Amino acid sequence: MSTRIRTWIQTRTRVPISPHSSTSPTQPSFPRETGQSYIARWAFAYFSFVMILKICGPKVRLVTRTIPRVRSCFLKLQPFGHVPAFKDHLTTVFGSRANCRYICDQYAERGNQILLGKKEDGAVGRAAIEQWIEAEGQSFNPPSLAIIFQLAFVPMMGRATDMAMVEQNEVKLAKVLDVYEQRLGESQYFAGDEFSLADLVHLPNAHFLVNRTNKAGLITERKNLARWWDDVSARPAWKKVVELQNQPKTS
Amino acid sequence: MSTRIRTWIQTRTRVPISPHSSTSPTQPSFPRETGQSYIARWAFAYFSFVMILKICGPKVRLVTRTIPRVRSCFLKLQPFGHVPAFKDHLTTVFGSRANCRYICDQYAERGNQILLGKKEDGAVGRAAIEQWIEAEGQSFNPPSLAIIFQLAFVPMMGRATDMAMVEQNEVKLAKVLDVYEQRLGESQYFAGDEFSLADLVHLPNAHFLVNRTNKAGLITERKNLARWWDDVSARPAWKKVVELQNQPKTS
Repeated sequence: MSTRIRTWIQTRTRVPISPHSSTSPTQPSFPRETGQSYIARWAFAYFSFVMILKICGPKVRLVTRTIPRVRSCFLKLQPFGHVPAFKDHLTTVFGSRANCRYICDQYAERGNQILLGKKEDGAVGRAAIEQWIEAEGQSFNPPSLAIIFQLAFVPMMGRATDMAMVEQNEVKLAKVLDVYEQRLGESQYFAGDEFSLADLVHLPNAHFLVNRTNKAGLITERKNLARWWDDVSARPAWKKVVELQNQPKTS
Repeated sequence: MSTRIRTWIQTRTRVPISPHSSTSPTQPSFPRETGQSYIARWAFAYFSFVMILKICGPKVRLVTRTIPRVRSCFLKLQPFGHVPAFKDHLTTVFGSRANCRYICDQYAERGNQILLGKKEDGAVGRAAIEQWIEAEGQSFNPPSLAIIFQLAFVPMMGRATDMAMVEQNEVKLAKVLDVYEQRLGESQYFAGDEFSLADLVHLPNAHFLVNRTNKAGLITERKNLARWWDDVSARPAWKKVVELQNQPKTS
């Protein structure tokens, strides 16, 4: 199990994003995805990693004992130790949103090239996207993560779901989603009429909320949000991410 | 009092950052500050705005009654209604960190030109900064804000401080500051040996923590953090921000 986690970390921290990168047992040969798919994959990996630590930490004794060793190695890449780091041949970056921004900036010529805005729109175009990325990090993520953790993962740990926490966070999340509903009534995507990183960073939690909890209605019963969700979750890159995530893990 | 808040919002949403902007009673004539000072000022303004809403909402009946009218106007700029929006002659951006990024990108030639990295360092240089901005937003801000609110502002509202919440968040914050302490032992500033936006976004909460609570030791008793704090809080731009913040408010 410790090997499994170590492999998991290694495969998530050595993504051969350059087409010239060599592959090795710790550098899985990913299909030739678009840049967008890479980023979606990364966002998903981040979320799953948090879950693996949260699930394995208290439940699996063997893992609990070996985690400090894994962590001491991992801490060199990610000083907080609780979200994955990204490493390519140029640098190491921690923080899932910082990872995504870096990949968009550094590999702007690959795949979807306007995830952080069109070149001709400059700082104004990027700001239109950045403000909704911040909305995700500050407003959407905390309550949605709390609900997902309580409803989808706490039961797997053999513990009782804290329903008061679910209800409390549902109220908070509903307020955020009301703002989203209004925004998505004005434009097709968060930052305008083009899919961007602002939409992408919402995908992991939205996916878990819709598919792993009984709170899908928070999204699917809001007309504009439902239309947005049907659109973004049907994108080939995201479907590929979900497919890869659902593949049996090697131990 | 409602006029005071309205004026406050107007002055914070119409910052005449362009040197060609005209000034009016609602567009205060700021001194010719550096871009860095503008951003520091904005970060500070954001924090104060949150506090004004939190303090006035429950305490001042007149304000409570008039806030919906103020909010309906403000919501056009900032859909969440709880942090200020930034508006210049080109666009409107909400979210304090998105505001700061936009100002750094759009006005890169004014004042401190490397707040988001040197041009020659490209995406790698920016990522080194972005990861610590994310650390501030995700790890430093939640516990430090909770402590500041409980110790500095709840007493002003005539309510009892929730000491359990203070203690709980102090534990969380201490873990974050341990990481910061280690990082600041490796380099002068968060992202390396140059002051950047990563340092700047930490200033408002660090300022309140040191100057408005009895928890200054969290920063000043950590050797590297104390050295960093002495350095950044002595910068002329930040001193100017604090001076402006301390000026008597017009009602």
